[in-house]
Amino acid sequence: MKIGVVGAGALGLYYGAKLQRAGEDVKFLLRRDYEAVSRHGLQVYSSDGDFHLPILQGFRQAQEMGAVDLVLVGLKTFANHRLVELVQPLVGRHTAILTLQNGLGNEELLAAAFGPERILGGIAFLCCNRGEPGVVHHLGEGRISLGEFAGGRSERAVRLAALFQQAGVPCSAVADLRKARWEKLVWNVPFNGLCALTGKDVTELLQHSPSREEVAALMREVIAGGNAQGLSEPIGGEAFIEKMIQATEKMDHYRPSMMLDRLEGRPLELEAIYGVPLLKAAERGVTMPRVSLLRALLDLGESAKGGARADGLLAETGTPSTH
Amino acid sequence: MKIGVVGAGALGLYYGAKLQRAGEDVKFLLRRDYEAVSRHGLQVYSSDGDFHLPILQGFRQAQEMGAVDLVLVGLKTFANHRLVELVQPLVGRHTAILTLQNGLGNEELLAAAFGPERILGGIAFLCCNRGEPGVVHHLGEGRISLGEFAGGRSERAVRLAALFQQAGVPCSAVADLRKARWEKLVWNVPFNGLCALTGKDVTELLQHSPSREEVAALMREVIAGGNAQGLSEPIGGEAFIEKMIQATEKMDHYRPSMMLDRLEGRPLELEAIYGVPLLKAAERGVTMPRVSLLRALLDLGESAKGGARADGLLAETGTPSTH
Repeated sequence: MKIGVVGAGALGLYYGAKLQRAGEDVKFLLRRDYEAVSRHGLQVYSSDGDFHLPILQGFRQAQEMGAVDLVLVGLKTFANHRLVELVQPLVGRHTAILTLQNGLGNEELLAAAFGPERILGGIAFLCCNRGEPGVVHHLGEGRISLGEFAGGRSERAVRLAALFQQAGVPCSAVADLRKARWEKLVWNVPFNGLCALTGKDVTELLQHSPSREEVAALMREVIAGGNAQGLSEPIGGEAFIEKMIQATEKMDHYRPSMMLDRLEGRPLELEAIYGVPLLKAAERGVTMPRVSLLRALLDLGESAKGGARADGLLAETGTPSTH
Repeated sequence: MKIGVVGAGALGLYYGAKLQRAGEDVKFLLRRDYEAVSRHGLQVYSSDGDFHLPILQGFRQAQEMGAVDLVLVGLKTFANHRLVELVQPLVGRHTAILTLQNGLGNEELLAAAFGPERILGGIAFLCCNRGEPGVVHHLGEGRISLGEFAGGRSERAVRLAALFQQAGVPCSAVADLRKARWEKLVWNVPFNGLCALTGKDVTELLQHSPSREEVAALMREVIAGGNAQGLSEPIGGEAFIEKMIQATEKMDHYRPSMMLDRLEGRPLELEAIYGVPLLKAAERGVTMPRVSLLRALLDLGESAKGGARADGLLAETGTPSTH
């Protein structure tokens, strides 16, 4: 299958490399890694076993890549204002587009530009970062839940899940992508934001009992927002929250992607993880007061940095990236 | 009138000095300023006119001060675990105790130890800080609203208000002290906490429109919490909020006391301004989700510093202090 990776940070490089190693015809839109990859290929250090790809099809311009069967989108959402122009040259008559980006609104953006029938979304549970140019460190996890933007468990989604599985990536097709997205937000909203804001990792956060209670309270708000969207079935309540917090306790001193973004001076994915969910909840009459405060506090920190960094960071989005 | 000042930071020194200058017999419990004041007296630089008191009755130990007619409490609330032992030696048969401390719970603490009939509370609108030992800078404001802990506009409260007025301090006796306290919290909860957490002053905060909205939303929560307490009349709604925000806009780059506490490494007044109000609201079935999150975030920052600093800061509480 011809695959084009747009947004080849840690996530895009990692999944693209796995697919290429499994025999797929993968092209990468590169920026920071272009030179290094052209000379030495790509080195993946992975908890599942290191591997090296001596030759990668790397491109500096999307226009040179040609149409593909599948566009894999790994762009950080703060660069979404360039998403359509980057994907456009890869889209042919039968091209499907799978976005593995964080949060809400990405499928909608792509659907508005390329038609809803092309669009799939996936939630990646991946801990991965970039080292020096040409090197990716895969620290653990990696599974993907993917589904159709239009809803339902399509044959295409099942085929794509099999594609990833054959490449050694645990992957399942889900019938309700929106539910999967909101479930991921139940984790992302508290941990990404609180860790980015306070500079504490998930372990430090959970060891502080008032913060632990606020994590659970934020989760409750997100669940209420999600369950107002008319999901195929509601997201679980207190048991789901307790399970998620316990799973997070096992992530020893894990630093969520937004915390790393802030530490390394990148923009934050505020719209996808906070802005759009707040809007979608409000449309259904659900307020998420803690989420709203957290978003404002994160945005205040961003506004202090000054605004126009996103362009410069377009393909520099994965150093390190965790999802 | 014999007056004893306990907690002679900027606030205690300023009001005590004004009362002494007006002819009252004022004793000060001092720590940081003891040496300097013994040698050179107290210098007050004030927007209302500088003045110097060559001799102050300063004491290192409360036990040496003897019983007074009025105890004026200016202690930072994070030192409240020592409040009763410091006030005790000053209490005689007819002693009244007026606490000008921030937040909720101070009158209750004093009432439990000394009987509710002795206790008055006052809300001080004062911008004041300490310079080098023996020097107080009064930057503006200074008015006090005071009232009986037991409620009602007593003759005693009216007399004390007159005492302050004669000393050049605008002061009024209020019938509903609890309402006055909650009204002050409507300001303190958003501005103290958000400025302390983010390091932004009130102007920077209000210029950022998502934060400005969160300030108003926090105010709404506090008003709901206050109005559940059975006040003599409810605290006003949106008009009150708008008025308060507009007044704050005129405080050019004002830095609330809690922001200064954090910047200078002092403990924060979290219990009085957040913990007790949250508890009192919850007792009446009112949740304040944003207030709860803000408290946890502030507390997380404190827990990172380590705990046992309050004792060492007992009389070091006013450098600079704003209320």
